[in-house]
Amino acid sequence: MIAPQVLINGEADTMLDARDRGLSYGDGVFRTLRCEQGRLPHWRRHFAKLQADCLALGIACPAEALWLSDIARLAPGNAVVKLLVTRGVSMRGYACEMAAPVTRLTLVSALPSYPNGLYRDGVVTRLCDWRLTIQPGLAGIKHLNRLDQVMARREWSDPAIFDGLMLNTRGELVEGVMSNLFLACGGELYTHPLDDCGVAGVTRGLVLEAAQVLGIAVHEVPLTLAHLAGADEVMLCNSLVGLLPVRQCLGAAPGFPASWHARCLYMSLQDALKPLQAE
Amino acid sequence: MIAPQVLINGEADTMLDARDRGLSYGDGVFRTLRCEQGRLPHWRRHFAKLQADCLALGIACPAEALWLSDIARLAPGNAVVKLLVTRGVSMRGYACEMAAPVTRLTLVSALPSYPNGLYRDGVVTRLCDWRLTIQPGLAGIKHLNRLDQVMARREWSDPAIFDGLMLNTRGELVEGVMSNLFLACGGELYTHPLDDCGVAGVTRGLVLEAAQVLGIAVHEVPLTLAHLAGADEVMLCNSLVGLLPVRQCLGAAPGFPASWHARCLYMSLQDALKPLQAE
Repeated sequence: MIAPQVLINGEADTMLDARDRGLSYGDGVFRTLRCEQGRLPHWRRHFAKLQADCLALGIACPAEALWLSDIARLAPGNAVVKLLVTRGVSMRGYACEMAAPVTRLTLVSALPSYPNGLYRDGVVTRLCDWRLTIQPGLAGIKHLNRLDQVMARREWSDPAIFDGLMLNTRGELVEGVMSNLFLACGGELYTHPLDDCGVAGVTRGLVLEAAQVLGIAVHEVPLTLAHLAGADEVMLCNSLVGLLPVRQCLGAAPGFPASWHARCLYMSLQDALKPLQAE
Repeated sequence: MIAPQVLINGEADTMLDARDRGLSYGDGVFRTLRCEQGRLPHWRRHFAKLQADCLALGIACPAEALWLSDIARLAPGNAVVKLLVTRGVSMRGYACEMAAPVTRLTLVSALPSYPNGLYRDGVVTRLCDWRLTIQPGLAGIKHLNRLDQVMARREWSDPAIFDGLMLNTRGELVEGVMSNLFLACGGELYTHPLDDCGVAGVTRGLVLEAAQVLGIAVHEVPLTLAHLAGADEVMLCNSLVGLLPVRQCLGAAPGFPASWHARCLYMSLQDALKPLQAE
């Protein structure tokens, strides 16, 4: 376990002002990305998403050069890089001080190792009891209000369970606690539109592009547990793990795929993602 | 503007570990209360609510003696006291380390002054565009996921507007950005049940008790803008300001009450609250 390294507003520091609005209200956004041998795959997309999320909350996104300088100083090699922006320090109360500078955090921590077997055999998931909040105003944004994920993640401690799948309060199947979700059925791809809940991850966007390259039809539609139970293949993705097949969802569905040589769409998408990974 | 004073885990410090889950995920709860000449009105209720909110999130609430010792050391006199608990510091990822100690913050800041005129003439409010999230799992809890309030509060900067009234995503009238809401109609009291959204404030509880003492019927039911427009009186409450009449809700309703000598329920409730305030 490597102790994370942290820069706060570009200074080597691990301590943050207790009056920061990130703490008081979760008033900020973040990104989690891989650093591979000093390279940042899909940096342009991650930074664009950080900017878009800041804009959605009315937070001034720190300039790209500042983030890149932070990351260079932390010299991460192979690591998880976390970027976090808050609306800064303010006096008590919800009202913002417009002139207050934002707080910029850059954190580096050890890259988890994902055994090859996960990509071949698939991961085990479970169905969470905790339901995702519906909030069109915050849908898609990777903000710091993450109690839904915290509460859902508290439902299991078995390390054999890779992630939990979550329904929203309307009962639609949306995503994993820490991943986006794709179902394959009849050679086509299905995923929740994330128009009123969920996080629109960068890797989700890459999978959608890979599907387009392959000419696979994608349906961004509300999903149900019936869709899950009837799926030929199920996949999770996020920026750390990439795209992973799901082989089981405890409490909701039998194994996927029906036969092990039938993981067609997953294999095709993984192939199509490779040139995108090189970006 | 008095600089707040802060204790972190009982130490005189203003800086918090940047890996605290309060910052990363809004994984914690808080209380805001008055200190009047060194006294803490309704302390038992505030501490009970802090305990209940911690319990709901599975966070170990620090012992009462620790909070009281913190507050005594900060010697606030007349002040706003804010108590904040987070699930503590953890490595990256939503999973909690069960043994991790919680983080306890005690902050003191200047007590705002509320002119007597507010209590006599009522305050001006506005109707917010931002809708409150529906989440039964978090309803009533004063947790650190407060982007709804931040985004709603960003809608106005006019200091003449005391608070914004909020509808939830289902269109029900729930509460103010920083207050709970009561409507009076036909001599009876109406307030949202807060069963799937909102914050169940301590002062709201006191108003409900005062109504009971007075024999005023209270209906905890979903409210609409039609209820607001048809109300005889409208009131806001929180632990800092107590109970306040509303004289206008910009964008939603004409003035309240219809005639200035008709603020009957408000006056009665204020009287009934006095002995409770002395608790």
